Amino acid sequence: MSSRIEPVDLPRAYLLLNHGPTVLVTSAHGEARNVMAAAWAMPLDFSPPKMLVVVDKNTYTRELIEASGEFALCIPSRAQAQATLRVGSHSGRGEDKFLASGLTTFPASKIGAPLVSGCLGWLECRVVPEPHNQQAYDLFIGEVVAAWAAPDAFSGNRWHFPDGERRSVHYLAGGSFFATGEAFNVSDPE
Amino acid sequence: MSSRIEPVDLPRAYLLLNHGPTVLVTSAHGEARNVMAAAWAMPLDFSPPKMLVVVDKNTYTRELIEASGEFALCIPSRAQAQATLRVGSHSGRGEDKFLASGLTTFPASKIGAPLVSGCLGWLECRVVPEPHNQQAYDLFIGEVVAAWAAPDAFSGNRWHFPDGERRSVHYLAGGSFFATGEAFNVSDPE
Repeated sequence: MSSRIEPVDLPRAYLLLNHGPTVLVTSAHGEARNVMAAAWAMPLDFSPPKMLVVVDKNTYTRELIEASGEFALCIPSRAQAQATLRVGSHSGRGEDKFLASGLTTFPASKIGAPLVSGCLGWLECRVVPEPHNQQAYDLFIGEVVAAWAAPDAFSGNRWHFPDGERRSVHYLAGGSFFATGEAFNVSDPE
Repeated sequence: MSSRIEPVDLPRAYLLLNHGPTVLVTSAHGEARNVMAAAWAMPLDFSPPKMLVVVDKNTYTRELIEASGEFALCIPSRAQAQATLRVGSHSGRGEDKFLASGLTTFPASKIGAPLVSGCLGWLECRVVPEPHNQQAYDLFIGEVVAAWAAPDAFSGNRWHFPDGERRSVHYLAGGSFFATGEAFNVSDPE
């Protein structure tokens, strides 16, 4: 597992989520912090980059995001799939889910939410307030204020997963995932 | 290529997009019809199922969706990746992109937009009007009114891609895709 991280140019930050990986959503407010899993996250805009994520009203993460106006999206590797399922299946109200799931963290650069160590990429986001979307659809828009990648998996604005474990994952249901698979290129015929 | 399609229970329709595949967005109004590619599409709710998709203001698809209030999300297979790139790189204002890309269609059950033959799954959607999201973010919400899958790839509410070509894809940029990769399961440790 690499512990190096390198900045990603903000207009290229969408590339971290363009292929639809499942993410870990981190949040913090005061002394409180939390992490949950989200399959429903995607880019919304290129520059300034914005991301969408659905965060249910019943979650502790929702409380912390609404209180702080910030969250991070961290892209876990296949090696972190069990921890991803764990933090997606329990509430952080009664426990520190980082400790309970074995996920360690390091500080973000521009927001209070921590970043999960060992992930493949990280997007630090500030909420773009849209109260109707938040209330009616549990839908949050985050402007990306800093983006980072693990250079063994993403550099030069492209993904190049080094092996079967250091690659992103796509959650289905009931503990089932897909790993991100084979890369291939096609050309526009005209 | 299978030409069979089977209905997907609406509360399970989210499973077609939960893993973040790239989709083809079809639309029609009067005699006009079009198809474009979208990597920025995801589920928003379970039941009634709703989907999100980002459709740029400059696109012909946008015109047809706003005129008809309907669209379909079709999940192309790897075998359709070149056509997916083609319809994502050209405008339908000057040509019939179905013909130009070699994509054939069949009628949807509840909406006017056609469905693309040979895809893995199909979501027929009616726009949930949210003018602010549409104007400010190019963001459309669609309520799924019918869902279908190709049973060689999805049945019993699960994906089971039969081979390397009959599997979904995840677009990156510049003609680069990932195929959906290996399926695996983890269990919640507690």
